[in-house]
Amino acid sequence: MKHHSLAQIGDDLRRRKISASALVSQAIASFENSEPELRAYKHWAGSQALQQAGAVDVLLSSGQDHGPLMGMPVSVKDLYGVPGMPVHAGTDTRFPESWERAGPLVRSLTGQLGIVMGKTHTVEFAFGGIGTNPHWGAPVNPWSSKEAPRVSGGSSSGAGVSLAQGSALLALGTDTAGSVRIPAAFTGQCALKTTHGRWPADGIVPLSPSLDTPGLLCRTVEDLAYAFSALDIQANNETNGAITPRPLAGLRIGVVENVVWDGIDPEIAANTEAALATLERNGASLSKVSLNGLDAVLEIFRHGGLAAPELRSFMDLNFPDRIGRLDPMVRARVEQADEVSAIEYLRRRNVLRTSGHAALKVFEHVDVLVSPTVPISAPLLSDVAEGDAYRAANMMALRNTAIVNLFGWCALTLPSGLDGNGIPSGLQLIAPPMREPQLLAMALGVENVVGKAPELLGPSPLCWRRC
Amino acid sequence: MKHHSLAQIGDDLRRRKISASALVSQAIASFENSEPELRAYKHWAGSQALQQAGAVDVLLSSGQDHGPLMGMPVSVKDLYGVPGMPVHAGTDTRFPESWERAGPLVRSLTGQLGIVMGKTHTVEFAFGGIGTNPHWGAPVNPWSSKEAPRVSGGSSSGAGVSLAQGSALLALGTDTAGSVRIPAAFTGQCALKTTHGRWPADGIVPLSPSLDTPGLLCRTVEDLAYAFSALDIQANNETNGAITPRPLAGLRIGVVENVVWDGIDPEIAANTEAALATLERNGASLSKVSLNGLDAVLEIFRHGGLAAPELRSFMDLNFPDRIGRLDPMVRARVEQADEVSAIEYLRRRNVLRTSGHAALKVFEHVDVLVSPTVPISAPLLSDVAEGDAYRAANMMALRNTAIVNLFGWCALTLPSGLDGNGIPSGLQLIAPPMREPQLLAMALGVENVVGKAPELLGPSPLCWRRC
Repeated sequence: MKHHSLAQIGDDLRRRKISASALVSQAIASFENSEPELRAYKHWAGSQALQQAGAVDVLLSSGQDHGPLMGMPVSVKDLYGVPGMPVHAGTDTRFPESWERAGPLVRSLTGQLGIVMGKTHTVEFAFGGIGTNPHWGAPVNPWSSKEAPRVSGGSSSGAGVSLAQGSALLALGTDTAGSVRIPAAFTGQCALKTTHGRWPADGIVPLSPSLDTPGLLCRTVEDLAYAFSALDIQANNETNGAITPRPLAGLRIGVVENVVWDGIDPEIAANTEAALATLERNGASLSKVSLNGLDAVLEIFRHGGLAAPELRSFMDLNFPDRIGRLDPMVRARVEQADEVSAIEYLRRRNVLRTSGHAALKVFEHVDVLVSPTVPISAPLLSDVAEGDAYRAANMMALRNTAIVNLFGWCALTLPSGLDGNGIPSGLQLIAPPMREPQLLAMALGVENVVGKAPELLGPSPLCWRRC
Repeated sequence: MKHHSLAQIGDDLRRRKISASALVSQAIASFENSEPELRAYKHWAGSQALQQAGAVDVLLSSGQDHGPLMGMPVSVKDLYGVPGMPVHAGTDTRFPESWERAGPLVRSLTGQLGIVMGKTHTVEFAFGGIGTNPHWGAPVNPWSSKEAPRVSGGSSSGAGVSLAQGSALLALGTDTAGSVRIPAAFTGQCALKTTHGRWPADGIVPLSPSLDTPGLLCRTVEDLAYAFSALDIQANNETNGAITPRPLAGLRIGVVENVVWDGIDPEIAANTEAALATLERNGASLSKVSLNGLDAVLEIFRHGGLAAPELRSFMDLNFPDRIGRLDPMVRARVEQADEVSAIEYLRRRNVLRTSGHAALKVFEHVDVLVSPTVPISAPLLSDVAEGDAYRAANMMALRNTAIVNLFGWCALTLPSGLDGNGIPSGLQLIAPPMREPQLLAMALGVENVVGKAPELLGPSPLCWRRC
């Protein structure tokens, strides 16, 4: 469907230029059109959504306004509890019903009468950046071809696909090391990783409570800003509900130069540099910056970080009998946790906290940092079937995004172009903790000149199927 | 000196019936009179305090009011940073100067122009409930005799003594497992252990960040309520600054019956029962309650809890070379942390969180819980010189108070009488997390009938020296 912004759709709904029923019907048609090949959803609730849309139309007709997300089709990652919808969290077994209770974010969404279309696929326990899942099959990247399917990125693997597919206009994901930004980058979407602790993670199956963050995926930064304002109480107080573009003139952009370019795909590097050149032409000042402490935190990350012991501890407590049934790629890391001592675990926490705090100094001289979101193209599904190849690709996919989680900051990604495989690449913008409104304002300015995803990336991502 | 409440003294200061200089001079005289035997202070700042008192008098004379603690002599446990005063945290070496920076609590105290008399002794890194310290000597319990000195309780070992001595009217302590309540109980004072997270622990040398809490010691509950209101922003919003006694009529008191009476000294049991009978006579209803989960959390506590790995991690990061120089009683527990895995550490955290949450159910039927604060009398210094005896006494001293920390609740202690050794015993009142104002209101009602410490306990605690 033609791209309308969430703000425009919200207006149109309230003016009755479109109905929620029509919107949801379109989403259902988009789902039916491509889901068999793409596999975005673990649980699809199209008919319930259509009934709810009818109810929303009645309320809209009577002049009620329950909030900015009223009537919007939304997909929810299958780590979130949504009443009445099963939770699997990427595992092979349905979770006990208590996990279906809504946490604050889903309560806010459904409180506004946003419409949950279904639960999207995730890597098992969200523990991986590639997007594969042996229990339920991996979602397929809509920019790849039928003959050579590529991954959609993870762990919110179905979230990006749901947007590309058109079955949702907003996707709730989670991000512990890149899990909203990687699938957004690989599928040509935008995504916001919030600061740890900004939004409560209650009602979400945990991977690593020390680092888990709820996050949003949308088709554009403009939509991200709209959805963020709709869901964030604090931002509403700060910005009075509206996040507006920050002019590029005078914007001090720090281009991260260490680590994040190592081993990068040349076309992704070129897309990133082209975007930076565009920003500079439009008045932003670029400077190269080196982030201190990257090697130390990434060394911790490569050894399982905090997630391996924290997930292991969660499983020991809740599902000890299921460890043996985990995706072998996940199980290997969970079992790795056996070797970590409490002192080593606490050392890691200390190093992360102190490194993230010390590295903040860079923001004395720049307003925002940029890096390529993911330095590699989305791998072919066939290329990550085997352990060593999976591990190497997984580490590369997660590296540039994980830095932000390890430092305790916030970030977003927006598309920078297509790589040599015809797969979208992403530009990551990084800001200090709790600066989401400012980050979004800067990203709106960036999007204005780099281009909105639907226009920038050209033909419909689903063309490989439709053509 | 005759007991005046902090509220009365605050009034008298503002009416110029007494001067801050006179108050501080009295405190200095009390210090000089007994300090050589009692050893409350690691660092004494009497002359600086007297100069500050002079300045406070000038400001008071010109009609300035900087807050409820203005002009009050206060002792501060030597874990807190106070600008210009050395920090040792009970170790053998002065900490780097950065540790002398004031955290929020000390800033609030000195911002009100409360007068810091000095830094009181602590168990090394606050890791013990008895109060001994081989580097600097243990403070002596002012209720014991010169010939047979007893411990003052720990880890805020100098804090209770400073109040009994009269060198301070308020003492800042910290409580990770009982460290304000045990010294208060053993020295005939009152103490409040705040809910973890209510007051930030910044500017305090950590023992176990997961459980560390700042706390207050005063001579009476009335003073505790005054000092708490002076330092707690939230309480001021809730109570408009004044915490008033809750009537005993209709108060539902749950008497904890499992664990807390095991192995108790008969006189301490009798004092506790007498206090409970008094409360019942005055209209409170008593019921016996059993707290679920006590055995599981105390089992964790006996194996080093969270403190052993957390302190070890702190030392590894900051002072790795000092581990070998620790008090052998402390070192043994720090080294014990080597054996704890990350998974076990996280299991402990999970068990504590879930147990504390589940046990809250008891408050559906009672308003407050009571227990003996410490089930044993303050040991003779000579009886805890040896490892096994120390360990056994330490565990007994900490057991009833640690429960509150392990569950994540708040509590206070007030005197219940004297035990067979002539040492004060304490009554512990326990409330759910963040209910400090309500707990203090109930404790004011309890104090009204059980008696204020100075009247209840009779002759001056220093009489063994003065007589």
